Amino acid sequence: MIESSKTESIGSMINYGMVGGGEGSFIGDVHRRAIGLDGMAQLVAGCFSRSAENNAITGKKLNISDERVYADYKEMASAEAKRADGINFVSIVTPNKSHFEIAKEFLNKGINVVCDKPLTTTSAEADELTALAREKDLLFCVTYTYTGYPAVKEARNLIKEGAIGDIRFINAEYPQEWLAEPTGDDNKQAAWRTDPKQSGISNCVGDIGSHIENLAYYITGQEIETLAARLDKIVDGRLLDDNATIMLEYKGGAKGLYWCSQIAWGSDNGLSIRIYGTTGSIEWHQEDPNYLKLVKKGSPVQILSRGRDTFSDHASSLIRLPSGHPEGYLESFANIYKTYIAALTKKQAAASLTADELDFPTPAMGAQGVRFIEKCVESSRKNAAWVNFQD
Amino acid sequence: MIESSKTESIGSMINYGMVGGGEGSFIGDVHRRAIGLDGMAQLVAGCFSRSAENNAITGKKLNISDERVYADYKEMASAEAKRADGINFVSIVTPNKSHFEIAKEFLNKGINVVCDKPLTTTSAEADELTALAREKDLLFCVTYTYTGYPAVKEARNLIKEGAIGDIRFINAEYPQEWLAEPTGDDNKQAAWRTDPKQSGISNCVGDIGSHIENLAYYITGQEIETLAARLDKIVDGRLLDDNATIMLEYKGGAKGLYWCSQIAWGSDNGLSIRIYGTTGSIEWHQEDPNYLKLVKKGSPVQILSRGRDTFSDHASSLIRLPSGHPEGYLESFANIYKTYIAALTKKQAAASLTADELDFPTPAMGAQGVRFIEKCVESSRKNAAWVNFQD
Amino acid sequence: MIESSKTESIGSMINYGMVGGGEGSFIGDVHRRAIGLDGMAQLVAGCFSRSAENNAITGKKLNISDERVYADYKEMASAEAKRADGINFVSIVTPNKSHFEIAKEFLNKGINVVCDKPLTTTSAEADELTALAREKDLLFCVTYTYTGYPAVKEARNLIKEGAIGDIRFINAEYPQEWLAEPTGDDNKQAAWRTDPKQSGISNCVGDIGSHIENLAYYITGQEIETLAARLDKIVDGRLLDDNATIMLEYKGGAKGLYWCSQIAWGSDNGLSIRIYGTTGSIEWHQEDPNYLKLVKKGSPVQILSRGRDTFSDHASSLIRLPSGHPEGYLESFANIYKTYIAALTKKQAAASLTADELDFPTPAMGAQGVRFIEKCVESSRKNAAWVNFQD
Amino acid sequence: MIESSKTESIGSMINYGMVGGGEGSFIGDVHRRAIGLDGMAQLVAGCFSRSAENNAITGKKLNISDERVYADYKEMASAEAKRADGINFVSIVTPNKSHFEIAKEFLNKGINVVCDKPLTTTSAEADELTALAREKDLLFCVTYTYTGYPAVKEARNLIKEGAIGDIRFINAEYPQEWLAEPTGDDNKQAAWRTDPKQSGISNCVGDIGSHIENLAYYITGQEIETLAARLDKIVDGRLLDDNATIMLEYKGGAKGLYWCSQIAWGSDNGLSIRIYGTTGSIEWHQEDPNYLKLVKKGSPVQILSRGRDTFSDHASSLIRLPSGHPEGYLESFANIYKTYIAALTKKQAAASLTADELDFPTPAMGAQGVRFIEKCVESSRKNAAWVNFQD
Repeated sequence: MIESSKTESIGSMINYGMVGGGEGSFIGDVHRRAIGLDGMAQLVAGCFSRSAENNAITGKKLNISDERVYADYKEMASAEAKRADGINFVSIVTPNKSHFEIAKEFLNKGINVVCDKPLTTTSAEADELTALAREKDLLFCVTYTYTGYPAVKEARNLIKEGAIGDIRFINAEYPQEWLAEPTGDDNKQAAWRTDPKQSGISNCVGDIGSHIENLAYYITGQEIETLAARLDKIVDGRLLDDNATIMLEYKGGAKGLYWCSQIAWGSDNGLSIRIYGTTGSIEWHQEDPNYLKLVKKGSPVQILSRGRDTFSDHASSLIRLPSGHPEGYLESFANIYKTYIAALTKKQAAASLTADELDFPTPAMGAQGVRFIEKCVESSRKNAAWVNFQD
Repeated sequence: MIESSKTESIGSMINYGMVGGGEGSFIGDVHRRAIGLDGMAQLVAGCFSRSAENNAITGKKLNISDERVYADYKEMASAEAKRADGINFVSIVTPNKSHFEIAKEFLNKGINVVCDKPLTTTSAEADELTALAREKDLLFCVTYTYTGYPAVKEARNLIKEGAIGDIRFINAEYPQEWLAEPTGDDNKQAAWRTDPKQSGISNCVGDIGSHIENLAYYITGQEIETLAARLDKIVDGRLLDDNATIMLEYKGGAKGLYWCSQIAWGSDNGLSIRIYGTTGSIEWHQEDPNYLKLVKKGSPVQILSRGRDTFSDHASSLIRLPSGHPEGYLESFANIYKTYIAALTKKQAAASLTADELDFPTPAMGAQGVRFIEKCVESSRKNAAWVNFQD
Repeated sequence: MIESSKTESIGSMINYGMVGGGEGSFIGDVHRRAIGLDGMAQLVAGCFSRSAENNAITGKKLNISDERVYADYKEMASAEAKRADGINFVSIVTPNKSHFEIAKEFLNKGINVVCDKPLTTTSAEADELTALAREKDLLFCVTYTYTGYPAVKEARNLIKEGAIGDIRFINAEYPQEWLAEPTGDDNKQAAWRTDPKQSGISNCVGDIGSHIENLAYYITGQEIETLAARLDKIVDGRLLDDNATIMLEYKGGAKGLYWCSQIAWGSDNGLSIRIYGTTGSIEWHQEDPNYLKLVKKGSPVQILSRGRDTFSDHASSLIRLPSGHPEGYLESFANIYKTYIAALTKKQAAASLTADELDFPTPAMGAQGVRFIEKCVESSRKNAAWVNFQD
Repeated sequence: MIESSKTESIGSMINYGMVGGGEGSFIGDVHRRAIGLDGMAQLVAGCFSRSAENNAITGKKLNISDERVYADYKEMASAEAKRADGINFVSIVTPNKSHFEIAKEFLNKGINVVCDKPLTTTSAEADELTALAREKDLLFCVTYTYTGYPAVKEARNLIKEGAIGDIRFINAEYPQEWLAEPTGDDNKQAAWRTDPKQSGISNCVGDIGSHIENLAYYITGQEIETLAARLDKIVDGRLLDDNATIMLEYKGGAKGLYWCSQIAWGSDNGLSIRIYGTTGSIEWHQEDPNYLKLVKKGSPVQILSRGRDTFSDHASSLIRLPSGHPEGYLESFANIYKTYIAALTKKQAAASLTADELDFPTPAMGAQGVRFIEKCVESSRKNAAWVNFQD
């Protein structure tokens, strides 16, 4: 038996549906596992694939009753909106370019939405969804996974509390190695990512650069004023960027540097961030996510351990295991859903929500992420000229 | 969206019940989450607490129908054994001293059993359960969590393949800090663990030393011939061991050294193992569980990354996420259940099972673990004299 | 006694002199210790300080005979050039702005020169010294310390051998924390470094950015085609840069990113480099200098250990201790001198020198370093516009 | 130029001689470099080898005048004792078995002695030397290298100051890999170490186990009450131990565990120590010697950096470089000599010495080290029975 007595309360479930995530899809499975980890919602409806066969098989395996396995997402939105026991929210895990239409449809039918990132292919679309969710008074979440880690939330809390003073410089990076070689036909993920027809204007910044942007913003609250980006096509024959360096200036004068790469041999999923303030610094690495390096001037370097050292109540509320029992990517993902579902449940009970209770990635963040991609591409096309972020 | 396309097959569920795990219990929650991660079994019955109130509340929150929330485990065993839709297995997550009677009851009723560790309080009881499960042809699993990690399974595979030659020396340790101070009444976990009336003959070896024994045996297959153990009561007023050092000799001549401690300030849950062979070595740390250090003579040190580097088919089959996306304690726990449930499902279809398909901790391992505790205590009482393991 | 039998040959000494390095100087002491480590040269003359008193005291403490403690470096150059037992080389360890005149004087008198970095304050001066040394057929060395580490030399060797294929991207950085607060009068080093009158056009790039440039060039041989640099004055009241980010493009098409900072709380002296090629990568950290991370596609990450793993003959020749016995900064510094003095000795015996025997930092590298500083400042003044390196 | 202004004072030299250390010897060279690092003593006499040719060549290369290159150490002791400019101390770097006779000879002639470790082959001899040095009022130093690191001295200081409370448990280890294979004739070091005729009663404990004992004693001051040791001969055909595990009990009740090994593939020179007290812990690794891990209950783990964080005045006085500029094995070795030579100089000026000024390893420590080896062998021969340390 384990040495702690930390206990999760056992809650009753709400219902959700899914668009996308048929057999052969990776990310749909991750969403379902993340939700399943806390048992706060059950999957009762879906439109899993445009292939009727895949759709049916997936529905069957997931124990969805036949009449709630829909051939078309519009039909699903209509039908579920009418049911007394209809879904409380829908998870959209389709390829990026269809996010906008699908999310719009469900919002218009009055159904809450969780959508994979990047939210849309243009920031105009993202802004439209943001406005629509607000107008309809629905809860909308964009699954930027990495902000779900308790140590990330504690980093944010420490900065809010002034632990490192005013922000001066942010250095964040996200190296991977998985596209370091020419993309063959045997890797479908690689093929569609590096194809402008499917991925749009950017591959590397679009996929992982946007995670840097979101993480840095989430932790520090720094808003980008201008940026200068160079997007590189390094591997022979590549049509979209597979490496990028971005210099930033934030409102208020802090500076930043981001690097993302998919050609970095030896890097698996190396998202990390170092934040320097007037009186200290904070460092976090996604591949070692349960720890936080905190430096205060005049004191030795401190290594904070999730579960051992005192985190804020909010960050602590998202810890499931005692210190030294590693929590990973799925727990982080689950925290996004846990917070979202709890907020939804409380909102449906007509209760008002605190900032902590609403601490899941918003469509405004999703819109900001799409804008970031657009601005990086714009700057790079001008030979890394400085571009204003809000223009 | 994520960069990999590794997909879990979506399977239909079997039914399980639980004894123990009422509200306020930690480990019951961990078992349920671990099972929930893969969605391969659903909880349909339980006897969660000896408190009628807690039992009822827990059952309600877990959506168990009223007639399958039992006041008594014997009643539960009888009733479920008779139902056509009765549970396929029971998870026993009660305090250690009741494991034996409960497990025996379910086995006698023909129900498969998963039981928390340590299996029983005496090796005689453990041997009896082992024999009973075999006689009844039931699948019995003891949840030694740490052998579920893919990197642990790969370490075992590498050794079987001869990657480091013949085993010469094993150095394993498990330091924690959580009992470094006198046990106050405010920590129930600490209180019962250090109370001989509840924990029996050993605290530190019983709780975490037995994990070392299981891990070392699982990875290397080395059987203990003799051991010399010193169990220390370090914190003032402690009645049971909180620190222990154990020297070992294995059959065939290899040697070993184990250290476990609950007074090691700065250690959260530091289970780790280093194995030295004639031509190389392997090292693994539970707090950094996705990596394996492999040394072959004449070659540079290698760091194997779960998901990036080639693991055996069996170890790979228990990976859920791409490299660099940390998998942790819950995934390891889930792998125990995943393997067990898949084996159960296949066995019920009258198919024969391979060794890999039966790769979950057996009651024989559980019995060996209890014997290990007994022998360490026996040696320590003789001033760390050498005692034969099998006598 | 130690476990290895690696033995340095014991050589007879040559004579050297020093300009600068009086009592109270740090770097003069480092140079003397570095030379002393191998006992290949003895200090016999000096002009240690413009203070007559300091000069005399230093000379006395270093056991220099009175007539060879000179009040003026010009007098020293003249006198030593005439002596039969005159110095074989001079070490110049004065503040940067006097390097040019002093080095020129000794070269003109036919005396070999070792000079601290940065070599001069303008690249024109540096080019002049380079030409002068060549014309006079004298050996000239600029003490870029960090290229003396055996692991750095092995990194260079591995790249030459094609271990990681063609270079694609270089990411190098050099964070420090020592200027993170406004410079007070109590820190003389900080005061002169951040004073444009003494440090010239750049502080951070001039001091540590130039080490990045040299290290990256030394290891990879990549020549800069263009760069875009942003030099930041982050601490209030600072007149020169204390942080800088630089994007680069090398001849042949590889890209790069450098970051140097003196406001990075928690960083002591964090020079590090990651080099990505078509088939692998190499990583090295100055604060852990005895190890090298080598990744080859399709293979696990390797950690090469200085002294344990096979390095080239040349790199191996600069190892003094067995593996696991840490060699540090002084040994790296000593390797610069060891190579230089051995080359000098051999050259004086009229022997021809191999490339490995001439493997110490040249004035051409010194000139390139000064140009790098100039170009970074030029780009930054143009708002981080791209500037050609050779214009 | 470097960023710090820490300056070593430049002192005038004293004279020393050496017995052993002819060409082909490793450790003699290390001693000379260590002394040379600070330039506080000059080598003026020697008896470097029993081979007349080697002796002459070594003397010549080291610039020793012919009449002070002695064929015999007794002759050397007599002659130097009579000279007005005779040596102030002798360094004995011969094989272990001759240490006793040589040290005795020099002490009897009134010459101060530095001797390599292990001091002698029996504790009786060591006790005799200890007494003789005291009687003659001479300074005697045994070169236990690893206690020279500033971080080790700071660990000792922190414990003295009560930073971790009362000592409860010490876990120290020293794994190496260099004897993991049968000893061939091509490795002279390995051959003599594993030969009982040359190494006496123990190889692994004698060579590296004794470093653990010295380090643990030096840092904590804990005196061994009893120990139980198992010395293993793991590699086929080995006549002496190449691996050992030792359980200890200290006076006052603290416990300990030591492990040393020469068959640990992947370990270069892995001396490390973890010390647990009532209120905290300290951890240090020789291969990363500039850092110290300090844990205080209720606070995050701290990583202390040599040169950055505040060390005691005494530890600080032995730092030569700013933080982040790695100091290594040679600097540690040099600190032993630096302290010894400074003490000698001051003593010769008839000044009294403080405890810090006498902080070099004494012959009493040397005697204790030899006793440790004897007791480990005694216990192991009794099947790891507990033996009293002082009997």
